[in-house]
Parts: sequence; C-alpha cells; structure tokens
Amino acid sequence: MTLARNTMIPTDPQARALFEEISTWPIVDPHSHIDPHRPAARNLDEVLGYHYYTELAHSSGMPAAEADPGLDPRTRAGNVAGYLERLDNTVQHSWLMEIARTFHGFQDERITPSNLGALYDRAEHGRDGEDWDRQVWKASNLESVCLTNDFDDPLEGWDTSRYVPCLRTDDLVLKLHERTTVERLRRCTGEDVQDLASLREAIGKLFGRFVSQGACACAISLPPDFVPRPGAPKRAVTPVRRAIQGLDLRPDEHAEIRATVFWMLAEFAAEFRLPFDLMIGPVRNAYAAGVAGGRDLFDRRVSLHDYCELFNHFAGVTFPVSTLSPDASAELVAYSWIFPNVLPHGHWWYSNIPAFIRADLAARIQAVPRVKLLGYYSDAYKLEFVLPKFNMYRRVLAETLAEACVRGQGWGEDRALQLARAVLLDNPRRVFGGNGRGSAGPI
Amino acid sequence: MTLARNTMIPTDPQARALFEEISTWPIVDPHSHIDPHRPAARNLDEVLGYHYYTELAHSSGMPAAEADPGLDPRTRAGNVAGYLERLDNTVQHSWLMEIARTFHGFQDERITPSNLGALYDRAEHGRDGEDWDRQVWKASNLESVCLTNDFDDPLEGWDTSRYVPCLRTDDLVLKLHERTTVERLRRCTGEDVQDLASLREAIGKLFGRFVSQGACACAISLPPDFVPRPGAPKRAVTPVRRAIQGLDLRPDEHAEIRATVFWMLAEFAAEFRLPFDLMIGPVRNAYAAGVAGGRDLFDRRVSLHDYCELFNHFAGVTFPVSTLSPDASAELVAYSWIFPNVLPHGHWWYSNIPAFIRADLAARIQAVPRVKLLGYYSDAYKLEFVLPKFNMYRRVLAETLAEACVRGQGWGEDRALQLARAVLLDNPRRVFGGNGRGSAGPI
Amino acid sequence: MTLARNTMIPTDPQARALFEEISTWPIVDPHSHIDPHRPAARNLDEVLGYHYYTELAHSSGMPAAEADPGLDPRTRAGNVAGYLERLDNTVQHSWLMEIARTFHGFQDERITPSNLGALYDRAEHGRDGEDWDRQVWKASNLESVCLTNDFDDPLEGWDTSRYVPCLRTDDLVLKLHERTTVERLRRCTGEDVQDLASLREAIGKLFGRFVSQGACACAISLPPDFVPRPGAPKRAVTPVRRAIQGLDLRPDEHAEIRATVFWMLAEFAAEFRLPFDLMIGPVRNAYAAGVAGGRDLFDRRVSLHDYCELFNHFAGVTFPVSTLSPDASAELVAYSWIFPNVLPHGHWWYSNIPAFIRADLAARIQAVPRVKLLGYYSDAYKLEFVLPKFNMYRRVLAETLAEACVRGQGWGEDRALQLARAVLLDNPRRVFGGNGRGSAGPI
Repeated sequence: MTLARNTMIPTDPQARALFEEISTWPIVDPHSHIDPHRPAARNLDEVLGYHYYTELAHSSGMPAAEADPGLDPRTRAGNVAGYLERLDNTVQHSWLMEIARTFHGFQDERITPSNLGALYDRAEHGRDGEDWDRQVWKASNLESVCLTNDFDDPLEGWDTSRYVPCLRTDDLVLKLHERTTVERLRRCTGEDVQDLASLREAIGKLFGRFVSQGACACAISLPPDFVPRPGAPKRAVTPVRRAIQGLDLRPDEHAEIRATVFWMLAEFAAEFRLPFDLMIGPVRNAYAAGVAGGRDLFDRRVSLHDYCELFNHFAGVTFPVSTLSPDASAELVAYSWIFPNVLPHGHWWYSNIPAFIRADLAARIQAVPRVKLLGYYSDAYKLEFVLPKFNMYRRVLAETLAEACVRGQGWGEDRALQLARAVLLDNPRRVFGGNGRGSAGPI
Repeated sequence: MTLARNTMIPTDPQARALFEEISTWPIVDPHSHIDPHRPAARNLDEVLGYHYYTELAHSSGMPAAEADPGLDPRTRAGNVAGYLERLDNTVQHSWLMEIARTFHGFQDERITPSNLGALYDRAEHGRDGEDWDRQVWKASNLESVCLTNDFDDPLEGWDTSRYVPCLRTDDLVLKLHERTTVERLRRCTGEDVQDLASLREAIGKLFGRFVSQGACACAISLPPDFVPRPGAPKRAVTPVRRAIQGLDLRPDEHAEIRATVFWMLAEFAAEFRLPFDLMIGPVRNAYAAGVAGGRDLFDRRVSLHDYCELFNHFAGVTFPVSTLSPDASAELVAYSWIFPNVLPHGHWWYSNIPAFIRADLAARIQAVPRVKLLGYYSDAYKLEFVLPKFNMYRRVLAETLAEACVRGQGWGEDRALQLARAVLLDNPRRVFGGNGRGSAGPI
Repeated sequence: MTLARNTMIPTDPQARALFEEISTWPIVDPHSHIDPHRPAARNLDEVLGYHYYTELAHSSGMPAAEADPGLDPRTRAGNVAGYLERLDNTVQHSWLMEIARTFHGFQDERITPSNLGALYDRAEHGRDGEDWDRQVWKASNLESVCLTNDFDDPLEGWDTSRYVPCLRTDDLVLKLHERTTVERLRRCTGEDVQDLASLREAIGKLFGRFVSQGACACAISLPPDFVPRPGAPKRAVTPVRRAIQGLDLRPDEHAEIRATVFWMLAEFAAEFRLPFDLMIGPVRNAYAAGVAGGRDLFDRRVSLHDYCELFNHFAGVTFPVSTLSPDASAELVAYSWIFPNVLPHGHWWYSNIPAFIRADLAARIQAVPRVKLLGYYSDAYKLEFVLPKFNMYRRVLAETLAEACVRGQGWGEDRALQLARAVLLDNPRRVFGGNGRGSAGPI
C-alpha cells in the first residue's frame, strides 16, 4: 500500500509552511462514531454508505431505495457512485477523493461508473480487516479517537487508550419512556429500575463503569427547544415512575422527565469529574422520507441563554459545546469567553464546511483564551474519514493563523504553531484525557 | 450606441480569467419585475426611480415628497440625483454607474447636478422605445427573463419565450378578503367565485392558463410569521366564504384562509408540475412613511423549520427558496442539502450585496449538490439593471471559484467553469424551463 | 517618554497606504466610560483591571477572588498577569501589548512574571496624574471623547468640549423602582418626584442640564426582551407612583413603567434634539459568579423589528444603534438602509473583534449611505485603550477599503480616504456634535 500524500496544500506560502508542519502531528479526535470492533471500512460501500454521500445523492435525485441497507454492498455503492457527478463540488466529495487517493491508490481525476469497479476491488478488506484497521490508523497518524458508546456498551474487546469510550446519554434523557431503554438499563446495571431513586442508582453505575474504563466524556445531543432546568424531584417522581412502567405521559410529564434526567446526568458529571459534551440543535426526523442518517435538521432559533442556569449551577463541570446552526456560532464565542466551564468544541455537522469553519475559527482565536479552544473532531463512522476531515480543518487553521495571526498580528511562525498545538493536541488531551483527568475544571 | 465593457474586472488573475469567460455567456434571469410591454427604461427617471435609489436617498435625508410619482420625471430624477453623493459608496450606486457607462456612454467619474442634464438627455428613449428594448436586450446578452405577473395578467402581447410568465400569488393568499382580489379572480377566470370549491376551480384555471403560456413558476412572498400547514377544509369553508363576501374576519379566520389557500397553491403546483418559488421574510409597510418600494423590512427570527411539513408533504414540487434575512442563509444551505425539493435561489433584496453573497455562495458551493444551485436573479424592474446586477454576482462567483475551488481544492479552470455554467445556465434553464418541464422533480 | 509607533501595519500594500494616512488623523470617540476626572490609568492595575482581562483570566482559570477590588493593586495586577499566557491569542491581549509598547516603552515580546515588576514601575503615574492624562491624550491624537454619565453627574470640573457628556438612562428605565434612583433624581433636579407628572418634570430638567453642557447624546442599554411601545399614561400612572413609593410591583407593572419611561426619554430626545443612542441586547448578570464587568451576556433571539414603532414614531430623533449579538448585525444594515433615523454605530463589546468587524463593515459600506456610517467607538474605561482599539478598527477599515472599494470597485485612494474620513470623523462630529447640533435629523 502506498500512502502518498494526497491532500490539498494551501497555496499561500505562510499557510503552506504552517500546514506542512501541522500535518505531521498525530491526530487526537475527541468525538467520533467509530465502531472499535470494526473501525476501518471493510469495503467501498462502507465509505460511500456514509450518510453524507447517501443524503447528498438522495438530495440530488437518487431514490432512497437505491441506498437501502438490504441491497448487496457492491450494488449499493454503485448506485450512490452514479450520483457523485451531481455533487462533486461539495467538500464531502473532496473527502472521498482524498480517501480513494490516500488509502486505495486511486489515480484518476474522478470516480465514474467505468472506474468504480476497480476502485471497489482495491478497497476490499473483508479478509484482512484488522490489519487494515492498523494500516489506516498508522497512515493517518492517529493518537486516540473518542467514541460514542451506548450506555449499555460493555466496553470490552478493544484498547480503550486508543479508542476512548464516551457515555452517550440521549436515550436516557429523551427516550426513558421507551420500554427498551429501561430494559437495557436494568440489564447492564443489574439495578431493578422502578422509580427515580433506582434510576439514579443505575445511572450512577453507568458513570462508574465508564469512568473505570477511561471514558473521555459524557455526551448528549439536545433538540433546539430543550431548556435545562433543575429537576423538581417531588414533581418528577410520578412521571418518572410512569415512564418506567411504560404508561402514557402528558407533554408536561415528558418535559419534566427530560429536565430531571438531564440535570441528574450533570450531577454525575460533576461527581465523576467527566466533561459533559453538549451538542445543541438537531431536530430529529425532520425529513422522514430521507435516507438513514439524513433525516435530521434544525431550527435556527436557539440561544445558549437557555443554558445559563446549567452553566452557573455546575461551575465545576466542563461543558464542551457544539451548536448545529451555523449562525449560532458567534454566541458560542461569547459564552466561551465568559463562562470558565464552557468550551467551543469543533465544527459540527451542518457547520462542518470550510466557509463556516473559517468564519468561526477566526472569531474563536480572537476572543476565546487559547487554553479553551477545542479545535476539531471528526464525527466519523469509519476510520478513513478522520484524516481527510482533519486535513480540511488543518488547512483552514493554517490559513487562518497565517492571515489573522502572522500577517494580522505580526506573530512568528513558532507562536502560530504553539497555538495550533494547543488547539489540536494540548487542550483535547487535557480535557478528554479520561479517568476524570479533566476533573479540576476545564483548564 | 457604443456598448463598451464598463464593468469592474476582478484583480486576482484566476478570478479575472474565470470572469472574462463567464461574462461572455448569455443571461438567464429567473426572477424579475420587468414589464414586458415596456421592459427598458424610457428615461433616466425610470432608472433613478428604482426603489434602491429613492429609498437610499430618502434614508440619506431626501424628503419622500421629492420622489413623488406626481412630479415631472426630469425634476424627480434631479431630486434623487442630488443625493447620490451621499450614497456613492453603496453597491447599488455602482449599478447606476455601470448603466450610465454601458448604455448611455457616460464618461465622467460621477453623476453630479452639473452633468445630470446631459445624461438625462442621452438616456431619453421615449420615442424609440421598442428599438431601445432590443438594444438593451442584445447588449446585455439576455436569453430569457422571468417575470412577476399578477394572476389576472392576460399574458398577451409579448414573446413569452423571452419574457417568461410567472404566476405571483401573494394577493390570493394574503388579500383574499379584499374585494378587488375576488373581483379580479372572477373576471379573469369567468368563475363565479363564492366559496372554497369555486375558489379552487378558479385557481385551477389560473394555473392552467399560466402553464399554457409557458410559465416558469408559481411564486409568493411570505411574512416571517407565516407557518404553512395543511388546510382543514371543514374549518376553512366558512372563513373563506366570509372573506369572499367581504365580511369581517377574526385573526384566526385570516390565518385559516392563508394556510388553506397557500396549501391549495402547492397542490396545484404539484398537479401542474410548476416550481413553487418561495420568498420568505418581508414585513410589509414596516416603515410606512418611506418612499414607494422602500417600506418593507423583516424580522430575523425566522426558521425554515416552519416549512418542514410543506417540504415533506409536497415531495414532488420543486421549491426554489429565497430568504430575506441575511443571517438565515446558512439554514437554507442545510435544508437544500437534505431536502431533494429545496433549492437555494439567488441572493434576495437585503441579502443582495457582495459581502453577503460571498459568504453564502462559498457555503452553498461547499455543501449543496451542483445540480441544485440556482445562482442568481436580478429582481429588476427595468432591463438595464439585469446586466450590472448579474455582473456583480458573476464577479463574486469568479472570485469564489478561484479562491475556494481552484486554489482551495486544486480544480482546473475548466472544472470551475463547468460549475459556473451549472449555476448560471444549466440549472435555471432546467428548473424554470416552463411548460411543466421542471416537472419531474428538481433534478 | 518615547511614543514610538507600536501598532501593527497591514501587510497588503494598498491597505498599508490607507492605514498610514488614516492613522495620522485625530480620534473622535463617540462612546466611552472614561472618568473625566481621572481619564488615564494611574498604574498598570488600572489597565489590567479592565474587565476584558479579568474576565478572560477568570475564564481561563483565575479564581474571581484574585481580581478582588479589595486587593493591593500590585498584587492584583500580578494575579491577572499570571494568566496572560493563557489568553495571549486574543485581540484584547494585543491591545495590552500596544499599550505597554506605546505608553510604557515596553520592549519584550511578552509580559511575564519576571518582567511584570519593571513594567508596573514604569506605568506608575500616581504622582504625575494630570500630566500623564495630557501625554496620553496627545500621544493618542484625541480630538474628543464622549462619556457615559450618570444622570445625576454634576458635569463639572472638566473641559466638556474634550470629554463630552452623555446622559446615560438605564437606571431611569430599568431601576425606577429602586429607592436610590428616585432619591438621586430628586436631589439632582430639586424636583419633588412623586408621580408620573413630576417624574416628567425631573427628567426634562436632566435633559436641559445635559444639553446645556454640550451633551452628545442620551444613551441606554436595553435587554433583548425589551420592546418599545408608547406608554399609556392612564395605565402607567399608578405603577409609576407605586415604583416611586418603593412599593412592590407585578411584572406587568414593571413592564409598563419601563415602556413609559423609555418612551418619555425618546420624547425628550426629540424635544432637545439629542441623538438617542440605543445599545440593544445585554442580559445583565447572566453569570453571577463572574468578575466585575464580566457577568453579562445576551440572548441572540432579538430583532430590530421590535423597534419599528419607535423608529416610525420618532422620525425626528437620530438613533445610533449598537447590537450586541454579532449575528444580529446584518439586520442593522437593512434597518439603517431604510430608516433615515437609524444609524449603525460602531462594533460593540462581544462584536468588537476583527472577524466580526470585518464582516459587518463590508456590508455596511456596500449598503448604507456614506453619511450614515458611524465607524467606531472605544467603549474604554481608561484613556490608554482608545488608541489600540481605534487602531484595530482602522486596520480593518483600511483592509476593507483596499479589498472592497479599491480592488473591488476600482476606486482611487482619494475616494477611499474620503469614505474613511466620513466614517471616522465627519459623521461622528456631525451626529454627536452636542448642543443639539445633531438636531436636524441624522444627516
């Protein structure tokens, strides 16, 4: 396997010099959806099956059925590939090209129906899977990748210093009323969850287990209309019990449960000294007829003001915050500038394109203390995506440092690199260091 | 007439090369307010009477009375011109200079009281109007211009392949309760509109007539607080009848009527396979003491989330979407990226300045499939404005392609031009091709 | 004292040429918190005590107690300085370096614990205070600085043509129910304030006194949920009397009082021909555990649409408007473009960083008439900050003019400088000229 350098290099000489240094550094990835049992893609379908491609192809005219999970992988990959020409302007397409070139020796200018077969063959790693995982890991110069683990994940069978667990808690807050949630909770904790008290016991056990496995964070994604508030145990006790029993709930009971469980998670984050990673904004299933992973959007009318009480109350908890609506990012700069425990985290999903990153990054560098900047995470499902996504960010970072710091502030290259290192390595290592190492507050 | 090249050329060499090619292409203009019976300005007053100049002059201190429609045209033009010095920094002023230079051989650096008379004389085309229309059309290299037609426009007396009809429906949705609306509807359809059923009949006839004349789209502008929802015929039947009869309506009845008629229009757009052009945001008459055309503003607290049900329900209807509040544009990128039937359309009104276009365009190019990008429309009232407005956009497009694609992604010039062609020509031709040609969905 | 040129110069040659000219101009500063009795910092603690440093240091991990007002100044300065390394990327840190170099002959690359003592000694001006005030004034080439005066400030003891009074009215609108407010009002006006009528008398006297002292404006900062509306005297009379008597008030009574007093201020602004400076957005005490001056944030869900009735009703009052949420700035461009009496004012607080200024400034220059652009104000508490803050703005202005006007529109350097002069000098002098000189409307 030839792992030639196949990423774009900035054309501006100062940015180029910075990028060439930065791109030799290891990658610390504080948030992904990598499956540690099967981190790299076993075939091209697992690359083209990434929701960015299926949703953009669908948005360009591909019927959702052509990406159906039931299809043969080669057929499905061919279906999606047939639409690449329609979306070859997107930055997501550029990740694909970088993957094909870096990991599969692809040399043509474009992926077309006529060269797809050869590429598919080359990308086939069904038989040498684990070796391939190691090759991709090494070629990408990865240091660690944080995961997204279901609360009942046994966290066994992989090296948790490389693939670092993260306790994802959406189900507990948003789906406590679904029977499977409670059943999973009972099964994985051995706790006979029946009411608020036993729910708290069980969740405490989850935190204990994750922290003992070196978890980097507790994480949740929250809809735009969610407003954290202290749970009122007296008011919550009945709805929580009814939810656990699977009884019908009124909207205000749902709201009470969500608030109560969320606040309880924050209490455990404080107790166990885990960062609480907030991902604010998605409206799930906004486009129900979309492809898997391509159905969620947002309502831009959100404000971090709704989170003030949380940030005030849990002064000892570090909150890395991602906001989904790109126009909400300026507010995150201000909140990170004031609240010691609020840190701007990466560039998430619909905000994860160079135009938005560029605008946000300059503002963060100009107004948020260096020690609080959490540069980037891949959000990837397969290991191959970590490198091209980080390279995209590292290019924008190099260009922003060259423009705003070297030319704009007269910094030397060393000082710019020192900032890059804080953003990409020092801060993520410190905050997501695991085992409650991020414990003494954010800094 | 000397039609020398009088537009700015980008200074960046790569952008310049792209612009020089792009600016030779014909112009396809998917939205304007051109009067097909009198498309070009007959005199300078019809240029300076454009609301951009009267409102900016008024905003700079000109009493509204100085732009009164009752004044003698030369006097009115002189009044407005007297304030040009106060707003000569604006991009709107640059359109005026390009018009004066391109179409009227103006050579001075500025329009001043001392040279205004000569310019006014030169721009006088009262006697050779139709010949002048053709000259401007040819000098601008226009291919087609979509109009904004009242629903009762007879659509006769002009070449509808050049000046393409568009069914504007604001009055039907927002002013059904005004007596003249119903009278006009009866008159132009021959339908005895008395209730919901006969209203539907009449609106169906409108669609039939417009489509038979090659209409490019059905269009509407909607206030920021409008939320589309399926009409409830049972609930709507009485308010609609009362509106048609001119009776007083409660606010909830107004809301029911708007929702019902709007949803009905979407149903006809589906049936007749017409794109439904949504222009979201204006608050009409926010500044009532302003000049004509300069009284509307917006409330920035809008979200496309309010349109999810519409986009889901009418999966077969193409929705070119314009949003008025510049800060809402990032949301449009995300919605166009996910919904197959949502297309980002041009850069509208208060968003139509290079700073906002530049930010939006880079994001659209990076995240929305190429086949869905609808680059630009002029929104012009007089033909002379199409060229300078398109040149403004084409400059930003060339600069963005040079920066984000050629330098940023390593594209060749050919590939960048291919994208420019999709944005400016291929996609608008396909989507607004008329006669239900845009019928099989957006792509 | 060597006052060498110690600010960054733009690297782009056209921007550099513009900046070198612009930076020789005097500074007109339309808004600050300078204490005219003690304008320049008497020691380094008064520089490092600026809330930007204490709040950023606190946000980086410094306990609030380390910046406690009760501490010895040298100790407190040392405490804050100990955290500078953590925030040396911020633009606020660059102001500090420019102050140290320009005013205190600092030569090292960074301020560290080891060189802090020497710098502290050099910056000590307790004994030569007034002479130091004059040196800083002269070295900064200041022409005039508008203040923020409590309504009961006697406005005596300084040169009001240099330090121009401004009537700050937050207390009257937002804290009328606090006993000290009414007491202060009685004391400074001699009016026996007991009810709405006598309140009006008293406030009229305030305006009279401020205008007679050459006040530049009446100013207020308003929370994001405030919506101006005409007071209803009948409805307000009882709540106002109860507030003055210190009785408990219901939320709707508070709201009525705020609306009534605010509207009354606008009436006096009209009568006395004073600009009414609106600063929209702060949520006070959002982070109660923060350092002094570092506890306020905002809710980004604001719209100037809430101010339409005010702008319409008081057509004769000039409203310089600042918005706190950076993403609300595009709306201000549109409102300034349409309403003759709305002017975009500077770049406020959380919006006052180059990345946001750059985006806003290009849009303002492209869409708001030249005569309405109010470039910048320092918001400074100590005189030393005026120069580095203005230099930051003047760099962005020079770069924007070079990019958007010289290269983008083909302007000559003279024309670009003419615009810069309007923005920095002509317009602020005219609007904030004092003595009702800004009286005949904004232009």
